[in-house]
Amino acid sequence: MVRTVAVVGCGTVGASWAALFLAGGYDVVATDPAPGAKAGLMAFIARARPQLAELGLAGDGALSFTENLEEAVGSADFVQENAPENEAFKRDFLARIDALAPEQTIVASSTSALLRSRIVADCARKHRHIVAHPFNPPHLLPLVEIVGEDDAVVERACAFYRSLGRRPIVLKREAPGHIANRLSSALYREAVSLVEQGIASVADIDAAVSDGPGLRWAIMGPHMTYHLGGGAGGIAHYLDHLGPSQERRWASLGTPQLNSEVKKAIVEGVEEEAQGRDIAALEAERDRLLSEIVRLKAAISSD
Amino acid sequence: MVRTVAVVGCGTVGASWAALFLAGGYDVVATDPAPGAKAGLMAFIARARPQLAELGLAGDGALSFTENLEEAVGSADFVQENAPENEAFKRDFLARIDALAPEQTIVASSTSALLRSRIVADCARKHRHIVAHPFNPPHLLPLVEIVGEDDAVVERACAFYRSLGRRPIVLKREAPGHIANRLSSALYREAVSLVEQGIASVADIDAAVSDGPGLRWAIMGPHMTYHLGGGAGGIAHYLDHLGPSQERRWASLGTPQLNSEVKKAIVEGVEEEAQGRDIAALEAERDRLLSEIVRLKAAISSD
Repeated sequence: MVRTVAVVGCGTVGASWAALFLAGGYDVVATDPAPGAKAGLMAFIARARPQLAELGLAGDGALSFTENLEEAVGSADFVQENAPENEAFKRDFLARIDALAPEQTIVASSTSALLRSRIVADCARKHRHIVAHPFNPPHLLPLVEIVGEDDAVVERACAFYRSLGRRPIVLKREAPGHIANRLSSALYREAVSLVEQGIASVADIDAAVSDGPGLRWAIMGPHMTYHLGGGAGGIAHYLDHLGPSQERRWASLGTPQLNSEVKKAIVEGVEEEAQGRDIAALEAERDRLLSEIVRLKAAISSD
Repeated sequence: MVRTVAVVGCGTVGASWAALFLAGGYDVVATDPAPGAKAGLMAFIARARPQLAELGLAGDGALSFTENLEEAVGSADFVQENAPENEAFKRDFLARIDALAPEQTIVASSTSALLRSRIVADCARKHRHIVAHPFNPPHLLPLVEIVGEDDAVVERACAFYRSLGRRPIVLKREAPGHIANRLSSALYREAVSLVEQGIASVADIDAAVSDGPGLRWAIMGPHMTYHLGGGAGGIAHYLDHLGPSQERRWASLGTPQLNSEVKKAIVEGVEEEAQGRDIAALEAERDRLLSEIVRLKAAISSD
């Protein structure tokens, strides 16, 4: 039974987790040694609170902040670690957390791309360590990708995330970038290739997603999308009739390199697309729409 | 000035175009030699009409149907061709349309993957032929991918599609699958690879999109997504710091083959994911959410 969650590392991901846990009614002990971390955390939580309330998460856990790691994890029932994405650092850091956290506490790493087997290598009690990778911003996107070795630990973690309205998915085995970042990278490689080849502008390539298939991908993933693309015969018909043309297209996809020329074209193209809006403005616009879409999906699926 | 649009081929794509044109106030002459085509078209339009009205397209053009191609295109101001996706057939068919349509009429092909240069090869007046590829279902998704050779023709076509609330994007040069289907194929290749490698179930791979990055892709494309992923430094910071890890992940992406074993795993996985819902039910669910999301985006962007 989780009551207190330690949020270790309070950058964007940690702060967003903290806001979610608090809104779910859990107490949070946050820790981060960086100067200004506490102020950044408080500001993020204040911004996220009304978004979470709109999603039906209006709990009010108690928040405390400490610069002392032992104090943060020493009495936590669940640890969410959000340290910098560096394998050697995380491996050492998780071993330290493992030594400090109570026996029954689950330790979840938010790592976006590292392999669980590598980062838990020095932990004495590996079985209670999982990867639990959210998608940015974690307080709005339901997905949590789970990698673990102990089924009971994985099931307890899934129940915890589900209690927060999350959608945990469990990998059958680990892979660099888990699932969603591998899929994102695959999409991005072709998006970069189209810039490299001069097929269209950065803004038009982005619009080709967000005014096209991206609208469907908010509702269903690629397999189900092609199931509907097969008409009455569904995915079996699709694969039999259009599988060969998929394979031909796969063979024609680009393999770009992020050299200085390509990077320059992307940076200039994104600048043009942003039309003077800074990151904060773009984020606010995105999060406003995201919370509306998430709310809409939840409302319709509970009809 | 477009008044009458000929919709040539009334399968899913053609019927959806017809519903859109009618709701935009244009008259439509539809044609399709297949048995039952007219009944299918009428049923589709009846279903789409309320969805279009919710999106603010409540016009009421006049619809007529003929099995005679000459009658359909002979007095049209704009032709939208939706014949089967077969290069030799389309090449011959577009040449026939070219010979029948009035001099000033633009002829737009909905081809999802064929190259414009190949399918217009036998047309006498190539300059007035464009590719105008919509994304399914065209009456709900704004994207229209345009390939042409005459800037004035392309500009007239873009104005026509914009009058229907569409978002035309113009390719600088042609590519098989244009832009959005190339991006979709890139995503699908990795989605198939994850099945092939047994990393996760089909349903979980789909959820990893639709409860994760897919929610963001309904709002912004991959380039802008990584711009926000770069924090205050934006895309330039992202590419400098995380570009190398993207390139490493690109190198690790799968190159699956749609052999019978993989196809079987996909078909079974999709069946499990569908949980007994048939194609019509899944489509109705998708289209209900799609029209809500499209409406939401339009409302917020016009604030």
